[in-house]
Amino acid sequence: MTAPFLAIDWGTTNRRVYRIENGAVAATERDDRGVAAMQSRGFEQELAAIRERCGDLPVLMAGMVGSTIGWREAAYVAVPAGIEVLAANCLSIDARTAIVPGIAVDTEQRSDVMRGEEVQLLGAVAAGLVPRDAMLCQPGTHCKWAAITRGEVTSFTTAMTGEMFAMLRAHSVLARQMTAPVAAGPAFVDGVRQGAKRDLGATLFGIRAGGVLGRLAEDDAASFASGALIGSDVAARLAEGGDRDFHILADPELGGLYRLAIETLGGSARIVDSHAAFVAGITAIQELRA
Amino acid sequence: MTAPFLAIDWGTTNRRVYRIENGAVAATERDDRGVAAMQSRGFEQELAAIRERCGDLPVLMAGMVGSTIGWREAAYVAVPAGIEVLAANCLSIDARTAIVPGIAVDTEQRSDVMRGEEVQLLGAVAAGLVPRDAMLCQPGTHCKWAAITRGEVTSFTTAMTGEMFAMLRAHSVLARQMTAPVAAGPAFVDGVRQGAKRDLGATLFGIRAGGVLGRLAEDDAASFASGALIGSDVAARLAEGGDRDFHILADPELGGLYRLAIETLGGSARIVDSHAAFVAGITAIQELRA
Repeated sequence: MTAPFLAIDWGTTNRRVYRIENGAVAATERDDRGVAAMQSRGFEQELAAIRERCGDLPVLMAGMVGSTIGWREAAYVAVPAGIEVLAANCLSIDARTAIVPGIAVDTEQRSDVMRGEEVQLLGAVAAGLVPRDAMLCQPGTHCKWAAITRGEVTSFTTAMTGEMFAMLRAHSVLARQMTAPVAAGPAFVDGVRQGAKRDLGATLFGIRAGGVLGRLAEDDAASFASGALIGSDVAARLAEGGDRDFHILADPELGGLYRLAIETLGGSARIVDSHAAFVAGITAIQELRA
Repeated sequence: MTAPFLAIDWGTTNRRVYRIENGAVAATERDDRGVAAMQSRGFEQELAAIRERCGDLPVLMAGMVGSTIGWREAAYVAVPAGIEVLAANCLSIDARTAIVPGIAVDTEQRSDVMRGEEVQLLGAVAAGLVPRDAMLCQPGTHCKWAAITRGEVTSFTTAMTGEMFAMLRAHSVLARQMTAPVAAGPAFVDGVRQGAKRDLGATLFGIRAGGVLGRLAEDDAASFASGALIGSDVAARLAEGGDRDFHILADPELGGLYRLAIETLGGSARIVDSHAAFVAGITAIQELRA
């Protein structure tokens, strides 16, 4: 069993600390002290404060803390990448403080990167939450789709789905229409179908036109837009071939939207606890490093 | 020959006034007193000032001035719509002041609207700048693609291409990369090809990943993003079938990017003077109303 340690999921805007004892979460805290909120040279002080609050223990971090805008850069590891490769390539800050590297698709044909999500993905495998051959999906600002083969991430694709939704709602001609919360109902499903068969640029302007012509209710605009974006994302992944059975690492609300979109377009999906996956992944890496 | 009149292309952010005598532009002015800059009840005063500056003449207006955020709403006319239908459905403000209606696709299957562009489209036909059966393209914030059949607009599609580019450059994770001006070079063409074959969400995140991994030069990011968005737009229109020979109503710079994208994806295109098209269209409508 791994000795007690602190695991930190340190992203751009949020941070979550877990004290892990005997492979289980003994304590946790979450705040908005993400990488973007740090002053230069603030990381050392921050970590000292975390150790004071949560325990004077070894620390293993993952996420944007290891990026060029983070504490120090932990170089990306190229796919295929399993949990052993992550453990072998951690960046040591000092004898009891380290950062897990991100992973990359880095070929002539295609570039893609992730940082933090790889711990969830491989943790889900390590904990037996998903099969060792599976298609995983992590919805969010930048939605990740990963192919797992014999327990390793062999390929992945990132789509800016969540960020595009946020931009449209905050800054576009559609902003005035997109005021209601997104609901997993008929407008969302209609958006999924349209987003799957038509280009996004035209599908999205249809929201404006449908509003002007009285064919799209004000309350449905945000749901339709979300459906169109997620539908475009899901349809593209399904068109790439491969397994149509997905495992979604997400909370039930956002995960439920992706599941509905996948099912609407002929695939199947189940939702997996993403926090449990992270804890399993970071614990497995810490064990391998011991 | 039509009696002298003032034609106003009154959009959301810009306004252009033409004094038209003997079918030609005798004087013109352009400013940023668009509809969005008007106070309520400001339109009458604005128009009085325009008549003082440009001539105490009949006035025919087109564009967002006829929308719900404009002076008064000139109801949309459904396609198919020719120049006669526009002339017959102008909204009279008073005996010598009128607004040209917009046009709409308004069916169970699809909603689309335009306001202002229809004058250019049908003006290009009226002036013989394009054939009476043709595919027209008006790039911009909301790019319009119109099928002209026997001189009438029989169908059209709007894509939010320009607006999406502006949002990405101003508000997205890509903003820091998209600082160079867009150039009609290899990075743009590469973006066109990728945007044509892959979903936008993934293609656009590739810019971020390509930057992080050093595979996309900083100076190329904006050009690649523009290419991806325009490529997605063009590919979708080409996939809809029909004529692959396009007439682009635009200035040479933006029109040139669309032409390059169309040619890259196997179509052909020529650029048509959009100001000449507007003047021909508004003059033809005024003539029919006389």
